[in-house]
Amino acid sequence: MKNLDKYVEENKDRFIEELIDLLKIPSVSADPAYKKDVLNTAEAVKNALKEAGCDSVEICETPGYPIVFGEKIIDKDLPTVLVYGHYDVQPADPIELWDSPPFEPVIKNTKVHPEGAIFARGACDDKGQMYMHVKALEYMTKTGSLPCNVKFMIEGEEEVGSESLGWFIERNKEKLANDVILISDTGMIAKDTPSITTGLRGLSYVEVELTGPNRDLHSGLYGGAVANPINVLTKMIASLHDENNHITIPGFYDKVDELSDDERAKMAEAPFSIEKYKEALDIEDVYGEKGYSTNERNSIRPTLDVNGIWGGYIGEGAKTVIASKAFAKISMRLVPNQDWQEITELFKKHFESIAPKGTRVLVKPHHGGQAYVTPIDTVEYQAASNAYKESFGKEPIPQRSGGSIPIVALFEKQLKSKTILMGFGLDSDAIHSPNEHFGIWNYLKGIKTIPLFYKHFTEMTKK
Amino acid sequence: MKNLDKYVEENKDRFIEELIDLLKIPSVSADPAYKKDVLNTAEAVKNALKEAGCDSVEICETPGYPIVFGEKIIDKDLPTVLVYGHYDVQPADPIELWDSPPFEPVIKNTKVHPEGAIFARGACDDKGQMYMHVKALEYMTKTGSLPCNVKFMIEGEEEVGSESLGWFIERNKEKLANDVILISDTGMIAKDTPSITTGLRGLSYVEVELTGPNRDLHSGLYGGAVANPINVLTKMIASLHDENNHITIPGFYDKVDELSDDERAKMAEAPFSIEKYKEALDIEDVYGEKGYSTNERNSIRPTLDVNGIWGGYIGEGAKTVIASKAFAKISMRLVPNQDWQEITELFKKHFESIAPKGTRVLVKPHHGGQAYVTPIDTVEYQAASNAYKESFGKEPIPQRSGGSIPIVALFEKQLKSKTILMGFGLDSDAIHSPNEHFGIWNYLKGIKTIPLFYKHFTEMTKK
Repeated sequence: MKNLDKYVEENKDRFIEELIDLLKIPSVSADPAYKKDVLNTAEAVKNALKEAGCDSVEICETPGYPIVFGEKIIDKDLPTVLVYGHYDVQPADPIELWDSPPFEPVIKNTKVHPEGAIFARGACDDKGQMYMHVKALEYMTKTGSLPCNVKFMIEGEEEVGSESLGWFIERNKEKLANDVILISDTGMIAKDTPSITTGLRGLSYVEVELTGPNRDLHSGLYGGAVANPINVLTKMIASLHDENNHITIPGFYDKVDELSDDERAKMAEAPFSIEKYKEALDIEDVYGEKGYSTNERNSIRPTLDVNGIWGGYIGEGAKTVIASKAFAKISMRLVPNQDWQEITELFKKHFESIAPKGTRVLVKPHHGGQAYVTPIDTVEYQAASNAYKESFGKEPIPQRSGGSIPIVALFEKQLKSKTILMGFGLDSDAIHSPNEHFGIWNYLKGIKTIPLFYKHFTEMTKK
Repeated sequence: MKNLDKYVEENKDRFIEELIDLLKIPSVSADPAYKKDVLNTAEAVKNALKEAGCDSVEICETPGYPIVFGEKIIDKDLPTVLVYGHYDVQPADPIELWDSPPFEPVIKNTKVHPEGAIFARGACDDKGQMYMHVKALEYMTKTGSLPCNVKFMIEGEEEVGSESLGWFIERNKEKLANDVILISDTGMIAKDTPSITTGLRGLSYVEVELTGPNRDLHSGLYGGAVANPINVLTKMIASLHDENNHITIPGFYDKVDELSDDERAKMAEAPFSIEKYKEALDIEDVYGEKGYSTNERNSIRPTLDVNGIWGGYIGEGAKTVIASKAFAKISMRLVPNQDWQEITELFKKHFESIAPKGTRVLVKPHHGGQAYVTPIDTVEYQAASNAYKESFGKEPIPQRSGGSIPIVALFEKQLKSKTILMGFGLDSDAIHSPNEHFGIWNYLKGIKTIPLFYKHFTEMTKK
């Protein structure tokens, strides 16, 4: 693959343009208002896969948004790589905090990305990272250097729980048969510090609704005499953490996989500056569970965060009202051995039990997924490690991430193959935030690294 | 005033129509979008006062919304009644919970109002109750039975803190000179249980903004490692009440006027059914400060209620985000001797002190006012009591209300006269709530009772 870097450099302007076109379609899966755009994005991905050299591409209907499936089978006896990615994106809210419109991509230089970065919702998560694989395939098919078979499974519901994906996999195990699953939907430590994600947290996402009186009330006439749903909801949520920021839900930690002192010591060796971390977020101090470091808190420990809260009068000015209802969206990040459905049940039972008399609580589970940890002594990991070594000139660091790709644990269970998480995003890329972006250097580096994985993996597994 | 009831009955259809016309103008003072409507309402009130017989009416400019001032002076040696009311209304949110549009008044029968009630924002608070005074004046001028002088001061900022009213009063003490101030902006116990409000709670209304990281963050990558502003805000708000629902702000209760056992025993004699109260609100139990009854909790005790809370993702579906900011609107109802500005300061100081490292808190005072209690052994109260006795056939019960009319304490201080609170609304009228309404029986009964106060007050104070 000598001409790999040359091919990427010669075609990079087109690669960037094509990604920008994809980013212009607002494929927000959470909001039904964007339904047509989500479907149009699936169509665009289908066309891109065909262009890149897939023999067959289809848009597979599901109970939800469709899955784009494509494949190029060159020899049934050769190994098969299954690429997973998603074409849907997070909502852009709060829109007013974007410096440029979220669906009008622009290239700007930043301190971290002096070569420029593409600013748009989905630039990094996951359109940009998914499209690296499409362009890597193009390189391999156009230059006759594809060493093995390849399948693509690109879904449209990752940001809302991947519900249809489980349905699809169960019904298409043969079609999806593979030797390794390759995903770029995570990050790396730094541009000069390549890393491979070896662990992901699980997730349980719920919405709660607390009802007090049957109508909004005048806070003067009723204030102090009835349970105010907002006051009560804050009390209930606050009680979910104790003074050491441990989660108080009974049974929550029962199955948590505790790391050994050795493992924790090894983790602590990864390059990390708490000062730079605080500076980047403009916070005076970090905050979290007592007894754990920042990097432990956001990777090997389960957490509970309110992702949204609302109730009462939230307009301009003042309204002296006691709301009838208050709401919150709450997500828990889970670690290996915690079962997300069991945790959802524990949450529900506990939250219902702490609602005081005079209120009624409704817990609506949204979605979830299991945590995932992969060993590093496998051939899959070694092939990836070799690819990074060849591309970056140094060995990648195995890293546990705090994020969740709920479907990864399911892949292993249903498809019986290991997943390799080759992420090229950076923590500072602001995924899920206003001004999400993806470095052009990272985008091109991904395209330059992926074919090397195909090469090493085929070499190491060829029968 | 023999022909009083007859006059009201003969003109009631017109009285209702005129009120409905006034209710059609959406005079929401909290929302600048309604500015023109608020100004149009002032104009409509001016015309109504002129029609009703005022010699002069003017729209007095202020730094905010104008004050409508009208008067009819028949003899400088006779006493003067100053009527206060407001032409602005609460926001109609949440609009979706109204059974009919808030600014398209309709008459419907209810269990409590079998004679019909007018449903519209402002029907009871305060357009309907204010307009009773306009129609009472019409009766007295048209039938030549006005026994004293009368002045009207109708403002447009009551629902947002009456800021301009203080400014206006300070500059117009002579113009506003009077012997008694008459207000209908409260309620009565029941249609067969007339009552006069002898106490109002004070108010301090603040908005708080809590900032954590400088941007919204991915809750997987950062969850557990940084202070989540929503989690922290719920903890801070929850901590404002202890396990007995006492407010924990240091110094908050220092000046609270504690009632004697005798006074509390007397209060407990007022007719009240806790079962009916719970049934009307569809709650299993009441909730509040330990050691006090429901009627004490909402009248003689200070309280703290969250009136609105928001932060993070509150749209459809799920977004795994840690918001950069979280907000709440909080109001405290105060009792005699608590100074609202001092309490606002105590709140601010305390709330700032409990924000953990890694967050910044901003407390923005909105508005407030002092509590008010009036004695019942005065000539003003006796005149009102006599009026009720003549109109209802039974003596009214003196009653402390939980609501606030922040300006009442200021009236006494600046204009040196007592205020009589003759309310004709009912608790079930849903003021500040969706489906606000005002019983037609109550509206007409108010018009039939007010002239009797003029009569008794003039008789009892004439030199």
